[in-house]
Amino acid sequence: MTPLTTDLLADALDALRTGSPLVQCLTNVVVAGWTANVLLAAGAAPAMVDNPAESGVFATVADAVLINVGTPYSETVAAMRAAVDSAVAAGTPWVLDPVAVGALPWRTGLARELLDRSPRVVRGNASEVSALAGGAGGRGVETTRTPEAVLGAARELAAGNATVVAVSGPVDHLTDGERVVRVANGHPLLTRVAGAGCALGALTAAFAAVCEDPLVAATAATAMLTVASDAAAARAGGPGSFAVALLDELSLLTPAALARATRLG
Amino acid sequence: MTPLTTDLLADALDALRTGSPLVQCLTNVVVAGWTANVLLAAGAAPAMVDNPAESGVFATVADAVLINVGTPYSETVAAMRAAVDSAVAAGTPWVLDPVAVGALPWRTGLARELLDRSPRVVRGNASEVSALAGGAGGRGVETTRTPEAVLGAARELAAGNATVVAVSGPVDHLTDGERVVRVANGHPLLTRVAGAGCALGALTAAFAAVCEDPLVAATAATAMLTVASDAAAARAGGPGSFAVALLDELSLLTPAALARATRLG
Amino acid sequence: MTPLTTDLLADALDALRTGSPLVQCLTNVVVAGWTANVLLAAGAAPAMVDNPAESGVFATVADAVLINVGTPYSETVAAMRAAVDSAVAAGTPWVLDPVAVGALPWRTGLARELLDRSPRVVRGNASEVSALAGGAGGRGVETTRTPEAVLGAARELAAGNATVVAVSGPVDHLTDGERVVRVANGHPLLTRVAGAGCALGALTAAFAAVCEDPLVAATAATAMLTVASDAAAARAGGPGSFAVALLDELSLLTPAALARATRLG
Repeated sequence: MTPLTTDLLADALDALRTGSPLVQCLTNVVVAGWTANVLLAAGAAPAMVDNPAESGVFATVADAVLINVGTPYSETVAAMRAAVDSAVAAGTPWVLDPVAVGALPWRTGLARELLDRSPRVVRGNASEVSALAGGAGGRGVETTRTPEAVLGAARELAAGNATVVAVSGPVDHLTDGERVVRVANGHPLLTRVAGAGCALGALTAAFAAVCEDPLVAATAATAMLTVASDAAAARAGGPGSFAVALLDELSLLTPAALARATRLG
Repeated sequence: MTPLTTDLLADALDALRTGSPLVQCLTNVVVAGWTANVLLAAGAAPAMVDNPAESGVFATVADAVLINVGTPYSETVAAMRAAVDSAVAAGTPWVLDPVAVGALPWRTGLARELLDRSPRVVRGNASEVSALAGGAGGRGVETTRTPEAVLGAARELAAGNATVVAVSGPVDHLTDGERVVRVANGHPLLTRVAGAGCALGALTAAFAAVCEDPLVAATAATAMLTVASDAAAARAGGPGSFAVALLDELSLLTPAALARATRLG
Repeated sequence: MTPLTTDLLADALDALRTGSPLVQCLTNVVVAGWTANVLLAAGAAPAMVDNPAESGVFATVADAVLINVGTPYSETVAAMRAAVDSAVAAGTPWVLDPVAVGALPWRTGLARELLDRSPRVVRGNASEVSALAGGAGGRGVETTRTPEAVLGAARELAAGNATVVAVSGPVDHLTDGERVVRVANGHPLLTRVAGAGCALGALTAAFAAVCEDPLVAATAATAMLTVASDAAAARAGGPGSFAVALLDELSLLTPAALARATRLG
């Protein structure tokens, strides 16, 4: 049924823990601290190098680069372009998180420009993916569609840009244009924590550093976050304690437990 | 005694939960993530759109706008002006949080300029309100006065600018120039969490989106944060666990419990 | 054996709690909120004033200034220079945290320039201190050396710049060029929380405001963070709950308990 096995996800997490990849994050000011904590908890090494004087040189040293357009400013956008230029030249895998694309004009143009620079994975919600594919966007950072409804657009986007597109939602849909993977884990409390999607983008970059197949990388990241969120929700009393428990569970999750708990479809 | 009833606060929270207003936040880098989490926990939808290329267009779509001058930079100040221009033109309610005004020159001028642009509510501590009204300010972000001592200045500020002024402190004082409401909830641990006041400003914007009377909006926000803080403090072991419990309690608070626990004066 | 007694550390914490020093932080966007919460939990008063129009005037009012070069931008770097100019002129003690210096070119030049402006303390990991002393740096924000291995470089750096150099690691090493203090507290979970080192820099600035001897200030900060981390780790289930517990323990730590638990060498 599914083109991937859960064994591949276990191997990916094992590689993440062994390699502790250095993930350069050019992300938004809202979630920068949270993103760094998610990467540390998972076993990666974050480095938030997002100024134009240093982002390019660092992208040649980093194991992966995350570009998240959540709060773009003139200086950080210049840093994003420099980092992507360098990443492409050096062969460093990079991931695009098109936060709120479609709802806002500047970042929509930026994301489309960056899409032409061979991101290994594009991760967004259904509205963002739809907008990036040329359709209508959402309102702010929240999505107004389901991953199912934009799967066709996601497949075209992936095929047309030789990338993997990961659409987050109640059931996550991931595709490289041909293969389609569904991950049916995850708890509604994830939508009550600022930066759950941004954290997934960062984890995707971390896995892209250690997985050759970007569809495996994106699926492993999605499975890791959502499986950990199921465990965290089981002992949380609300969104505050859930976010804290999620970091704990990310650090405690073993490759075997990940393979066991992931519901691929 | 008090010009408002606790039933009005219950109705306001009910409207917030039903409407899930989209709150555009132009706030400081210290509390951006925390503010987004407070809004999500309370039931609103935050969007941190704070660049000058996008803030204006977004203020026409958002249900309310928060302007918090905590860490102003040239680009975010330009974004604030664009957002306020748009909000005024579109009739989007907006809230001014004059963080550290009085202690610092640039933002004091900025806050006075913005005060002329019809904020629905101005929320600050006693020193900030005093400084905005033309008196002496405090030292940094901490206040050196009580709300009682600046009530006269707050009333004049409110009357002169056709706005509501909410003065935070041990007993919060809120006024539209004529009516005065006091809220006697809240725990000292709130002063040990970075951004408790900033969170109140954001909640005020969220309620301003769903309440026609800005005095009700500001009072509902104050009541919600302080009542939740009383519950959080009862099970906290210090400022770290308090902040986590506060997010949980904000999400758990029901309109009926809010009405029951709020001590209006 | 050790040039300092634990009684001096108890006195320092007592002075911090009594004085509640106002600490101006020019720090990175990743840890700004976390740093403010650490300072508040410990008993200090943070103020993140990091724009060039206000940072200079505020450095004459603040009790101490922290300069952390973690995410430099053109505007915040200008603010750092203005704050340091003012701090030097006004005699306000200031602390330099050279995050990722050595791995990145722009900030390395900036940190060397600022080093000439008489910081009271320089706090970094072994790679950062080595790079600042003219040796090779690390990779990103993580260190690839031990404090023991760079003690010679740290002593020279301290002696040559009339400052105290605090090298963080499994056993922290602190020196003013002549005296050397070792602090053997601290838990590995500290390396899984974003901004543990940055928090130490901020605490060092807070203690520099209330201690005449900068070696005592740096040692008290190191002891406070690491002793609190030992207590937090004892009841944490992972990095998320550890960070929360750390804030609680910082607020609960008494001068007597600090003196009792600190392992000086």
